[in-house]
Amino acid sequence: MTEESSHAKGRTAWYIPDAYIPPHSSGELESHESICVLNCLTEDAEIRVTIYFEDREPIEDIQATVPGRRTRHIRTSSLSKNGETIPVGVPYAISLESSVPIIVQYSRLDATQPANALMTAIGYFG
Amino acid sequence: MTEESSHAKGRTAWYIPDAYIPPHSSGELESHESICVLNCLTEDAEIRVTIYFEDREPIEDIQATVPGRRTRHIRTSSLSKNGETIPVGVPYAISLESSVPIIVQYSRLDATQPANALMTAIGYFG
Amino acid sequence: MTEESSHAKGRTAWYIPDAYIPPHSSGELESHESICVLNCLTEDAEIRVTIYFEDREPIEDIQATVPGRRTRHIRTSSLSKNGETIPVGVPYAISLESSVPIIVQYSRLDATQPANALMTAIGYFG
Amino acid sequence: MTEESSHAKGRTAWYIPDAYIPPHSSGELESHESICVLNCLTEDAEIRVTIYFEDREPIEDIQATVPGRRTRHIRTSSLSKNGETIPVGVPYAISLESSVPIIVQYSRLDATQPANALMTAIGYFG
Repeated sequence: MTEESSHAKGRTAWYIPDAYIPPHSSGELESHESICVLNCLTEDAEIRVTIYFEDREPIEDIQATVPGRRTRHIRTSSLSKNGETIPVGVPYAISLESSVPIIVQYSRLDATQPANALMTAIGYFG
Repeated sequence: MTEESSHAKGRTAWYIPDAYIPPHSSGELESHESICVLNCLTEDAEIRVTIYFEDREPIEDIQATVPGRRTRHIRTSSLSKNGETIPVGVPYAISLESSVPIIVQYSRLDATQPANALMTAIGYFG
Repeated sequence: MTEESSHAKGRTAWYIPDAYIPPHSSGELESHESICVLNCLTEDAEIRVTIYFEDREPIEDIQATVPGRRTRHIRTSSLSKNGETIPVGVPYAISLESSVPIIVQYSRLDATQPANALMTAIGYFG
Repeated sequence: MTEESSHAKGRTAWYIPDAYIPPHSSGELESHESICVLNCLTEDAEIRVTIYFEDREPIEDIQATVPGRRTRHIRTSSLSKNGETIPVGVPYAISLESSVPIIVQYSRLDATQPANALMTAIGYFG
């Protein structure tokens, strides 16, 4: 199998250095981030998320599943482990490991002002 | 042919995990997404688009053509198969397969508010 | 030389499928796009830009130079060949070929509304 | 070690061609840029930043450290060498070299208008 074909459907390790849940919302929409996962294969993707901080130990092994031939746009505010969630207004970073190749894109909607701002990036893949 | 030169003009498989047609528009511009394709070769690119959802089977084999030495900025709202189009206000994801190497960039204009928001990413390539 | 080290300072072929000069500006800033080039080497980068359209032949071999150990943020509205410039309000795409490895990032400021929108992407490299 | 696994945790050379500190802010937030670094390894990452300009010699060897298993979102306005900082309102570019593999994402918040604009990109890696 050539290198190209082996990555044709994605990668198993993904990284997003710039994550941040804006603490405020105004106007019609709510500030949020999404980790958008595409699983083109037929098997489910079992994903383990790690959250890195500036000043404390990471939160490791948060679990998520994306069924085969489905996408999931996972709100970062929905991730939790042992009742712990990601704090708002704090710079952090994300890594994901998946049981099967996936593609990961990160997007943020900042609705601090009634006029929204958007940003997106395909993650770095290992 | 080296690996670099073989990809000099693009790739044949592209993926965009974060797609979404904003349901509302206000102000002067209309909310929309574009799949921007560049075909640097002389042959036409025959493209098959697959649309992945969170909760149902993909729509497969939507056809599009980008002539040789041309770009096309394809509005996602213009894609259809057997009369079925992509619903607005629903998170989805996109994959493209092309008969020849192309380059794919995805952009969204969100005009939910009169003050617009923009985001863009070069797709993931397989 | 390993593959990694051979690309440590950039690539010689770059592609941006989604280019567009917004025709309107309001507020304090002017709508514009920039092709941002970084040349980390000591030699000048002699660059040839090609502009691809949806419905006509490309404009080829527009010349630009980025000196060694310098960046240039080139406004697309400043590019011209034989007096021909890029029309505003028209979807187009860009390719660049450089005499030495460079890194290319594309950014757009849309000031159609007084509240601006920004988007950026590192180009696809061949 | 395969190519994939050798880059699983990042790269040691990163480049961001489009950097710019907006000179004005209005509304609730302040215009700024961040170089967001993720260090997944256990060792500290010792980073040397170079700032490239359009019309003068680079500022080289600005030092920064990102501890192991931590992220840092470094405001570009906080970088300095011998008391020299990055001027606002001037197009520039950034390169980073790290003692260990890291992942780098660049983001800009433009609050020139009360309604903010955001852009982000994973850097180019050498």
